[in-house]
Amino acid sequence: MRTDYCGAVDASFIGREVTLCGWVDRRRDHGGVIFIDLRDRDGVLQVVFDPDGKEDFQRADTVRSEYVLRVTGKVRARSPETVNPNMATGEVEVYGRELTILSRAETPPFQLDEHTAVGEDVRLKYRYLDLRRAEMQHHFRFRSKVTTAIRNYLDQQGFLDIETPILTRATPEGARDYLVPSRTHAGKFFALPQSPQLFKQLLMVAGFDRYYQIAKCFRDEDLRADRQPEFTQIDLEASFVSEEDVMAVTEGMIRQLFRDHQDVELGAFPRLTFAEAMAKYGSDKPDLRIPLQLVDVKDLMTEVEFKVFSGPARDPNGRVTALKLPGGNDKLTRKQIDDYTKFVSIYGAKGLAYIKVNDRDDLQNGLQSPIVKHLPTEVCAAILQRVEAESGDLIFFGADTGKVVSEALGALRCRLGEDLDLFTCDWAPLWVVDFPMFEQLDGSAGAWTPLHHPFTAPSCSAEALADAPGAALSRAYDMVLNGTELGGGSIRIHDPVMQQTVFQILGIDAAEQREKFGFLLDALKYGAPPHGGLAFGLDRLIMLMTGAGSIRDVMAFPKTQSAACVMTDAPGEVDAAVLRELHIRLRRKEESAG
Amino acid sequence: MRTDYCGAVDASFIGREVTLCGWVDRRRDHGGVIFIDLRDRDGVLQVVFDPDGKEDFQRADTVRSEYVLRVTGKVRARSPETVNPNMATGEVEVYGRELTILSRAETPPFQLDEHTAVGEDVRLKYRYLDLRRAEMQHHFRFRSKVTTAIRNYLDQQGFLDIETPILTRATPEGARDYLVPSRTHAGKFFALPQSPQLFKQLLMVAGFDRYYQIAKCFRDEDLRADRQPEFTQIDLEASFVSEEDVMAVTEGMIRQLFRDHQDVELGAFPRLTFAEAMAKYGSDKPDLRIPLQLVDVKDLMTEVEFKVFSGPARDPNGRVTALKLPGGNDKLTRKQIDDYTKFVSIYGAKGLAYIKVNDRDDLQNGLQSPIVKHLPTEVCAAILQRVEAESGDLIFFGADTGKVVSEALGALRCRLGEDLDLFTCDWAPLWVVDFPMFEQLDGSAGAWTPLHHPFTAPSCSAEALADAPGAALSRAYDMVLNGTELGGGSIRIHDPVMQQTVFQILGIDAAEQREKFGFLLDALKYGAPPHGGLAFGLDRLIMLMTGAGSIRDVMAFPKTQSAACVMTDAPGEVDAAVLRELHIRLRRKEESAG
Repeated sequence: MRTDYCGAVDASFIGREVTLCGWVDRRRDHGGVIFIDLRDRDGVLQVVFDPDGKEDFQRADTVRSEYVLRVTGKVRARSPETVNPNMATGEVEVYGRELTILSRAETPPFQLDEHTAVGEDVRLKYRYLDLRRAEMQHHFRFRSKVTTAIRNYLDQQGFLDIETPILTRATPEGARDYLVPSRTHAGKFFALPQSPQLFKQLLMVAGFDRYYQIAKCFRDEDLRADRQPEFTQIDLEASFVSEEDVMAVTEGMIRQLFRDHQDVELGAFPRLTFAEAMAKYGSDKPDLRIPLQLVDVKDLMTEVEFKVFSGPARDPNGRVTALKLPGGNDKLTRKQIDDYTKFVSIYGAKGLAYIKVNDRDDLQNGLQSPIVKHLPTEVCAAILQRVEAESGDLIFFGADTGKVVSEALGALRCRLGEDLDLFTCDWAPLWVVDFPMFEQLDGSAGAWTPLHHPFTAPSCSAEALADAPGAALSRAYDMVLNGTELGGGSIRIHDPVMQQTVFQILGIDAAEQREKFGFLLDALKYGAPPHGGLAFGLDRLIMLMTGAGSIRDVMAFPKTQSAACVMTDAPGEVDAAVLRELHIRLRRKEESAG
Repeated sequence: MRTDYCGAVDASFIGREVTLCGWVDRRRDHGGVIFIDLRDRDGVLQVVFDPDGKEDFQRADTVRSEYVLRVTGKVRARSPETVNPNMATGEVEVYGRELTILSRAETPPFQLDEHTAVGEDVRLKYRYLDLRRAEMQHHFRFRSKVTTAIRNYLDQQGFLDIETPILTRATPEGARDYLVPSRTHAGKFFALPQSPQLFKQLLMVAGFDRYYQIAKCFRDEDLRADRQPEFTQIDLEASFVSEEDVMAVTEGMIRQLFRDHQDVELGAFPRLTFAEAMAKYGSDKPDLRIPLQLVDVKDLMTEVEFKVFSGPARDPNGRVTALKLPGGNDKLTRKQIDDYTKFVSIYGAKGLAYIKVNDRDDLQNGLQSPIVKHLPTEVCAAILQRVEAESGDLIFFGADTGKVVSEALGALRCRLGEDLDLFTCDWAPLWVVDFPMFEQLDGSAGAWTPLHHPFTAPSCSAEALADAPGAALSRAYDMVLNGTELGGGSIRIHDPVMQQTVFQILGIDAAEQREKFGFLLDALKYGAPPHGGLAFGLDRLIMLMTGAGSIRDVMAFPKTQSAACVMTDAPGEVDAAVLRELHIRLRRKEESAG
């Protein structure tokens, strides 16, 4: 139906006749002539109709925004005064000869170039219009291009693209699973996979050696924090590999994507242990673009009378730490500090102590702070020395349980970085390694729960693991970029005894192991190779690379924060007869409440 | 952990030390020496341990089938008498120096090289073992390679890979939908998509111009006929295209796949109209490898007294047709003809009349048949002439409604082709075009139902369509290969009035249109481009190309015929507390029965 894309027409086309198809981006009358900006996937091109065109001119006069047209005409140079340097095709225009209206359009519910003024619900309801915007078109072209690059990279590395099922096994208490009632098996359910974890491990047991999949995953949970019920992972697994092998191949992939599609050379990724990351950044996904670091001062505080500090300092689970903001005295008002005090309270901090270092050399009068009166001068001196304070610096303090201090001061660090634009670079990737195998649900008292998942291998023997679960480190590794976890993985357990040991530590007894993971334990008995892998969040990667404000802006048809699709009105109601075939019925309201 | 894959080691490696990882395919003792066939993804390689190897020799003595090993040793030439020409690596062996047992293996429940003797349920239960077989390894390497080739082809053609949702809108009566209860929206359900049809049309309305996706689709139905609850489509759609454009790009793709991955030049695909296909082959997916054709003789039968023929011949919905099997007299026994009579009864045929042409020139005594006595000689003569019968031919007849005759004789044609190996070539692709828009559910009396789907454009105007729905042809096209529908598509409706006309013919009133398809009708109002596309069944394509016996053999973790996974034991039971959160409960048995 056409000879060329609009965006492809440039000065080299002058004199040629072209046929174009696209949408009316804008239509103007000027001096008895009609100017139509015709838009397609590739760009926008000006088409001109003058009264010599007769019927075609008259038809051009009837077109409105978002009409779909087919236009034939000769490409000509624009006169010098009408050249538009802001348009890729701004040197030329098409002198329209034939015009066909392929589709008419009602006035759109919002202007396609004014999306910022429109609520997201309206954009989502008319998603097919929102997606016409140049920014959205770019996101999805970019996503397609990068996805292809990822596949090509993994193909070249010998990974096989193998599909794993979407209808998988439901576990009795799977609280975050989406469930699917079976028609054939009354009273039973499939679950949609939260990840293809066990299937990819079975593919390793099956000898496929290197597997990858761009895989849909599902999680039925609160959609705060920019999550979606269904999301896409770059999922991969390899046999006969160590941590170094998996990290090399995946770091190489991200480096190549940024080189080819972002024009950025990321260099070798630094590595931090989990312990270092928590100590310096209060987070296991630190944003290394921000030059601030936490400095622990717990040892200086054990003997002070000020209980806010000495209490946590004497508690084995406590943490007392300082966060120095260089030159912060001038940068923050009292009001801002109050705001930050409120901000850290979100993370459970009961306050936000600080010292303004007015004169570094005058410990008596040079420190401005609500707390210095509670601290001996030699403690103040030791603090200033440890954080290497200069006059003009501002030092924040956190003192509480380790968890609260890390989360609160870690978040404050990022907040300061953003508010004061402290970023030292655009991209800061790193690996975090040496995670603990387990954490305890309620501080130091509760049951053990895996920091990653129960199939992660420890770096110690099964005996050592059983003896001291809290001391064991795992063979897991997370890739972090700009404070976001891009991907995570580990070397997996390939020994059935080790797997049973982990299950036991997690409180899963032999009967439950068999019931839930019998097929995995069986598979490990028949010759499982050492193996490991990693999964990236593709949506998040594309969001970071495009600079989109939300993962919803890099998914064609996302759900709202309440897990609904306002365009198609999903989820929807279903006839009772259908539910009967599925062997279920709706609960009455009072039943659900109970 | 290794330097090379086993299968990669050949004579060029002689003298080099290699480290290999893999499974014990076979272990033999011979003259005090241990031979281990070590297997990995790439192939099998012989490793030799002799007593000089001390501990490593002793360890080699303990290994059993399917143990996972790491072996280091020097590659050497085999002695001439031990060269194995049936093995890719048969000229060489590794003289083992170091052996590490990475995993032990219990005796597998079946021998990996004797799968044919094992029931499929056992193979599926231990799928990770079944997949180790060379044949299965090949299927999935091939599938990965072809999938990559498909993506590359479509990328080069400007198609964007865009993901559409898996959690989609449920329609009230969606009988074949898998449903997913919503946690957030009590009493409402998502449906898993039977195809991304409407989403890809919306992507065209959104201006993406060319879309593709290797998309998971779901259908909850009887799993007869080698179907699976979830299957994979190569789904594509393009804007501003005609039938010819879509057919050219997709035919080009299949031709390239067969050229590059099957070493076959398919040539240009012939085209048949639906009417021709039904007339000549009794099927809209004819297997053109079989040289037999149906020849209608309805007009010859209207006046005969034999009611079996004259009844259908006089009925406007009847069909009377002949199927000539050249030289069939010698090829089929009476017993076989009886079997075929039973076979066609599956399709509703009440019998299978036939004539054995013993002597083509002797109409009195040369025809052997239970029916010739009911037919006038001149009718017999006319039949023989029309089917161009020769002495020795066998002619079958079908006489019933058009539907029964086409299905029965179409199936008989294929059955004869297989039983007598009549295939004239390996691959016979074609297009079937000019389908009717609608068919009637109960012959000529029932409601109209679409032959494809209700978004398929007709080749006539909306007025003509409303006037005579039964006469309208659609702009649909199916690609058929060796009697299997590989893919189907159409130009879609892009005009809201046309879409409403089709809905009305299908008995969907305005309220139901809005309720179910409001978002589509809205989208068509805001400037929809002309568009069309096609979807291929990827599983089926790979099955045909690999010669696998079932689509289950080209899916890593398929379901059984009762839609269950015997490996993971899915679907499974779910706690009542979880169901409560989903606002549903199980029906009691007596409720379900009702």
